[in-house]
Amino acid sequence: MKAEKPALFTALSPALLNLYDVSSSIVVIIDVLRATSTIATALHNGAKGIIPVDSVAECIRLGKQIEGITAGERDGLIAEGLSYGNSPFEYPAEFIGGKTLVLTTTNGTKLLHMALDKGAKEIVTGSFPNLSAVCDYLVAMKMPVILGCAAWKDRVNIEDTLFAGAVISRIKDHFHINCDSSQMAETMYNDAKEDLYEFMKSKNASHYHRLSRFGLEKDIRYCLTVDVANILCLYKEGKLIKQPI
Amino acid sequence: MKAEKPALFTALSPALLNLYDVSSSIVVIIDVLRATSTIATALHNGAKGIIPVDSVAECIRLGKQIEGITAGERDGLIAEGLSYGNSPFEYPAEFIGGKTLVLTTTNGTKLLHMALDKGAKEIVTGSFPNLSAVCDYLVAMKMPVILGCAAWKDRVNIEDTLFAGAVISRIKDHFHINCDSSQMAETMYNDAKEDLYEFMKSKNASHYHRLSRFGLEKDIRYCLTVDVANILCLYKEGKLIKQPI
Repeated sequence: MKAEKPALFTALSPALLNLYDVSSSIVVIIDVLRATSTIATALHNGAKGIIPVDSVAECIRLGKQIEGITAGERDGLIAEGLSYGNSPFEYPAEFIGGKTLVLTTTNGTKLLHMALDKGAKEIVTGSFPNLSAVCDYLVAMKMPVILGCAAWKDRVNIEDTLFAGAVISRIKDHFHINCDSSQMAETMYNDAKEDLYEFMKSKNASHYHRLSRFGLEKDIRYCLTVDVANILCLYKEGKLIKQPI
Repeated sequence: MKAEKPALFTALSPALLNLYDVSSSIVVIIDVLRATSTIATALHNGAKGIIPVDSVAECIRLGKQIEGITAGERDGLIAEGLSYGNSPFEYPAEFIGGKTLVLTTTNGTKLLHMALDKGAKEIVTGSFPNLSAVCDYLVAMKMPVILGCAAWKDRVNIEDTLFAGAVISRIKDHFHINCDSSQMAETMYNDAKEDLYEFMKSKNASHYHRLSRFGLEKDIRYCLTVDVANILCLYKEGKLIKQPI
């Protein structure tokens, strides 16, 4: 029985993604603070779709072309020339409902394009706000999985690792896991799960530090909250859409 | 005061080493199972020096040239054409005393050459058998430190991460650490420190699994034992030598 389970791997940084066979796998793009949390929230709040692009210039060009909302950040701040940032609180239903968002971020959208270029079989985005939807989908699909952490400029980060660990702790019985990174992620999550926010703070996580300087504690708390925007975000025909599960 | 402390970073895989400034740092090469444990042991037992080389062919060539002992492994087994393997038990004092070892391994010696090519200021090797010597040296030098995990073919592994965590837990007060990988390593080590061997086993660490299939539990236990070959292994003029501290 054991051998028949699909494999699950965790890539702790985009620089490690090429070690895994994405072409036969579902790749889960994880950028907890804040891209994939914002994606889940905007789709949950009724956005028609989210087009991830990998440069600010492309974001501006495409935003004009399709009359979409341009959004994104570089180094944690709204990128110059774009209208909105990367905070989930910028996208309530009354604003984003029925609209298309064109989004570019430092790490998350970059990793998504990397997975795409390498021929990933399926791509979804994952975050604590849609943890259950991601887990249910991965279990239902019975396919190999790569949990892809967006990290920070290729440097491994705690929050994306914690999310990978949260997924693993929920679905590990359905997968064959021979991957130390996955074991590490789950160990970290088990240490942190009582209070993810306090864990991040106590470990002086670099990204916690970076965002809290900008006064974004509220964002951090939201991005560590489970299932508050619990929908599946599937990449299909060039955009992320809300997928019924 | 805090700002004056030198920085410490952990690179969890050779594929992440280029994210850090090795040219101003002491790079600690960590390949717990088994290269750096064997290096510490052979030098502790009186080897004159150890020449790390990055290919089997070069190992054979140089071994003949200097009449040294050729040793090394590929994929955990003695490499074809070499006389000895990568087990610390192959190098007791009565055999290795006064001799020069030419060594090539899958991950450890490769990472050492990578650090060298990138212009690392100083290179030492680290393992549980010489944990205290490494820590004392790093504290005494008051220089930036990069803990470089050799990993397994670029895949992050538990045992090298645990050693990084052990070093960090001992010397962190002397360094400025803004590095999530370091925080993760220390968290892992704190979870594991009561019984490193049982931790490795319980996590089904991929390398534990790989070596225990070859019947090398004895090697694993030794390589997780603190200070049994407690000398500093410094890379100097092309070879690793025992350095008085």
